[in-house]
Amino acid sequence: MKRLGLVIKAQQFDKRTVERVFTTAKRMEISPPAKLLDGRIMASLFYEPSTRTRLSFESAMKRLGGEVISTENAKEFSSKAKGESLEDSIRVISGYADVIVLRYYKEGGAGRAVAYSNNVPIINAGDGIGQHPTQALLDLYTIKEKFGKIEDLRIAMVGDLVNGRTVRSLSYFLAKHYPKNQIFFVSPEATRMRDDIKSYLDKYNVPWVETNSLEDVLPKADVVYQTRVQKERFEKSDKYSQVVEESKGLMIGKHSLALMKPEAIVMHPLPRLTEIGYAVDRDPRAYYFKQAQNGLYVRMALLKMILDEY
Amino acid sequence: MKRLGLVIKAQQFDKRTVERVFTTAKRMEISPPAKLLDGRIMASLFYEPSTRTRLSFESAMKRLGGEVISTENAKEFSSKAKGESLEDSIRVISGYADVIVLRYYKEGGAGRAVAYSNNVPIINAGDGIGQHPTQALLDLYTIKEKFGKIEDLRIAMVGDLVNGRTVRSLSYFLAKHYPKNQIFFVSPEATRMRDDIKSYLDKYNVPWVETNSLEDVLPKADVVYQTRVQKERFEKSDKYSQVVEESKGLMIGKHSLALMKPEAIVMHPLPRLTEIGYAVDRDPRAYYFKQAQNGLYVRMALLKMILDEY
Amino acid sequence: MKRLGLVIKAQQFDKRTVERVFTTAKRMEISPPAKLLDGRIMASLFYEPSTRTRLSFESAMKRLGGEVISTENAKEFSSKAKGESLEDSIRVISGYADVIVLRYYKEGGAGRAVAYSNNVPIINAGDGIGQHPTQALLDLYTIKEKFGKIEDLRIAMVGDLVNGRTVRSLSYFLAKHYPKNQIFFVSPEATRMRDDIKSYLDKYNVPWVETNSLEDVLPKADVVYQTRVQKERFEKSDKYSQVVEESKGLMIGKHSLALMKPEAIVMHPLPRLTEIGYAVDRDPRAYYFKQAQNGLYVRMALLKMILDEY
Repeated sequence: MKRLGLVIKAQQFDKRTVERVFTTAKRMEISPPAKLLDGRIMASLFYEPSTRTRLSFESAMKRLGGEVISTENAKEFSSKAKGESLEDSIRVISGYADVIVLRYYKEGGAGRAVAYSNNVPIINAGDGIGQHPTQALLDLYTIKEKFGKIEDLRIAMVGDLVNGRTVRSLSYFLAKHYPKNQIFFVSPEATRMRDDIKSYLDKYNVPWVETNSLEDVLPKADVVYQTRVQKERFEKSDKYSQVVEESKGLMIGKHSLALMKPEAIVMHPLPRLTEIGYAVDRDPRAYYFKQAQNGLYVRMALLKMILDEY
Repeated sequence: MKRLGLVIKAQQFDKRTVERVFTTAKRMEISPPAKLLDGRIMASLFYEPSTRTRLSFESAMKRLGGEVISTENAKEFSSKAKGESLEDSIRVISGYADVIVLRYYKEGGAGRAVAYSNNVPIINAGDGIGQHPTQALLDLYTIKEKFGKIEDLRIAMVGDLVNGRTVRSLSYFLAKHYPKNQIFFVSPEATRMRDDIKSYLDKYNVPWVETNSLEDVLPKADVVYQTRVQKERFEKSDKYSQVVEESKGLMIGKHSLALMKPEAIVMHPLPRLTEIGYAVDRDPRAYYFKQAQNGLYVRMALLKMILDEY
Repeated sequence: MKRLGLVIKAQQFDKRTVERVFTTAKRMEISPPAKLLDGRIMASLFYEPSTRTRLSFESAMKRLGGEVISTENAKEFSSKAKGESLEDSIRVISGYADVIVLRYYKEGGAGRAVAYSNNVPIINAGDGIGQHPTQALLDLYTIKEKFGKIEDLRIAMVGDLVNGRTVRSLSYFLAKHYPKNQIFFVSPEATRMRDDIKSYLDKYNVPWVETNSLEDVLPKADVVYQTRVQKERFEKSDKYSQVVEESKGLMIGKHSLALMKPEAIVMHPLPRLTEIGYAVDRDPRAYYFKQAQNGLYVRMALLKMILDEY
């Protein structure tokens, strides 16, 4: 019997554990064990609101019979508003719950939390521009469900790559565990993928290309991973407007579908604005809602692996 | 075995179903089946806050053994703040829950949601100035509990009739299913009941009268349904102030009780401001808190009819 | 079989009941009865946010198998924003829950609520600058756990004593039930303990001293109860800044530990800002996180005593 002690960043996972997450997630989809976590409590500690992620975790916990205590905007409300440190909040809340799901507005939040949680497991649900490992796991799971494998694929990551923690975590996973893939970073100049990821890919010999032409990439890609320009990460609104302007050529619409392979898929961590047109939703290659649904199964799997066993 | 597929507007209900809601609600009051919805999840998706309605639904779900995931201010928090459409939110959340209770700030929200929920039932908990059908059902239930019938009654609707969705939904129900009633619309000029409802009443031959004199109506009414001037629906504050001023003659106080029949009742969807004086609360004809309590039973009934059977 | 009918203020408790809270809390810590409150619903009605207190109560309820309906910022959201009175809210919510935990922003809120709750028990979770009796109970429990008694101790209360409801409730308890203690009030001139408490202590012959020198007190104290300057209670920010300035000499740091007895403890209701240095956390005399943890057991005990029996 093993237990997962925490979920902080993509790099922590060995391949065996990732695969175990996937097989467990599949079982959660098919026959969820309804009372498995009866009597256990998960705390949702969200310093910035994220309804989707929070409700996904809370549904996962409740589908397994567990309970939830929750705060959805701890930065404005609550003790934080009175000036309390993250560390103090974690120390206190670890006394009330068996696992803490933490969304924090600055990179490194989840990592800091671990040292103060008295061995109560921490799950990183996004730390600023840092990582969002459960999102990356559900992204991988979605790819695996579709292609039956996560290798020998051409994966285009599109949009706000500098601020997008999902594409960061996904890149780590791909580089470390899954061979023969190729990555296209498609973005305006101002939101290029950061160098740390590029170096990581180089270290693992993952070929990557940087471009601002989506049209060049679409015919080659098996996975088109679109992202939103994250307004809330831009300090100056004119910079944001400029990036939005430059991103117009990166919107995925009906014209894009015509360029794509018949077996390719379009993914998106959601929420989306205009970067994927609504007309795309009806195409069988539109995979972003299935992807969101997979988030439930992957989070159920992680909660089982943390609170029960694997 | 039948199931109710959704609760969107008053017009959807045939009389047989309405009556079934009432008999089920009565059973919920007397002997609630505590584990009936064990393992089922309700999502409360409130785009504008409404503590009363939300807690009423959540209590109803939990009284039946079900679970809840909840967001109480989705318009300011969460994905909506990042610009996500209602449709996308519904598509995602329908993957996490077995029924969605939706409060939306614009008319038609619940109707739009239905098309995107993958057959997960939607309950309309208020859509802007549109409808609030569960409120109307509990209003009717309250009248039935009091009078043993919903016919041959004189019902005065008082106050902000142009913005009041409860009086709208109630009018629809009365017109369609319950004969021999008579309606008095009592309001200032600026907040008259809208024409669509008047036409609907005409179509069903429900006699109605429009007046701004509450005193004329009180001695005749069996039900005095008071409403609040809904500040949040007025775009200009001077218009609101003017309506408040003109509504002063419509306040119900001790003097009003003297004019009312001994067997009449005063109803109000709550919250109230000054439109019913606190002195009225002690009168046995004050029925608004009983009415709020009935909301619990009616919502339990609806959840049973949606998630279990009827 | 007895039940506790409400928890409003320190003065309501006789010593026998307080002691029963402690023995029950101890049992909750050692072997919590996981399904005791199955099917019961607690409403968290927080007019001002307090994540710690709210999550502590909600965890307590869920650890006992009960359910929770919750609002974390009722003053800004919800019916209150529409102008509803506390009394009306309580009347309605008492129809949805079996116990109401109320945090209110003005003194006397919980007391007002009792008259309108239709015998649904109210627990005061803080009423402005009034009281916070469950905090005081957990404070006492922490002292008892440490010293095996609550008498013959020297207790220093430090900081913002004029606004600190925890030190007020604690003083009431100490005076009424526990003999031979001595209290030091250590604060700047502007945040001195109010006269009502001093009179109460005098009435019960509890010796107290008022000073602004922490250094004089530290070598004598068994318990050093530090508090935060409550910015949110100051109407003028310059007054607040002045008090913060004058409070600098009251900060507890490593230098303070050197002055303290080896068996003394440092307590704090949390959240803390700078009034206790992080370096103190590692000292075995730092008791504030243990104190927060004890809050869970004390609240479980109170919920049991209210909803089950004692």
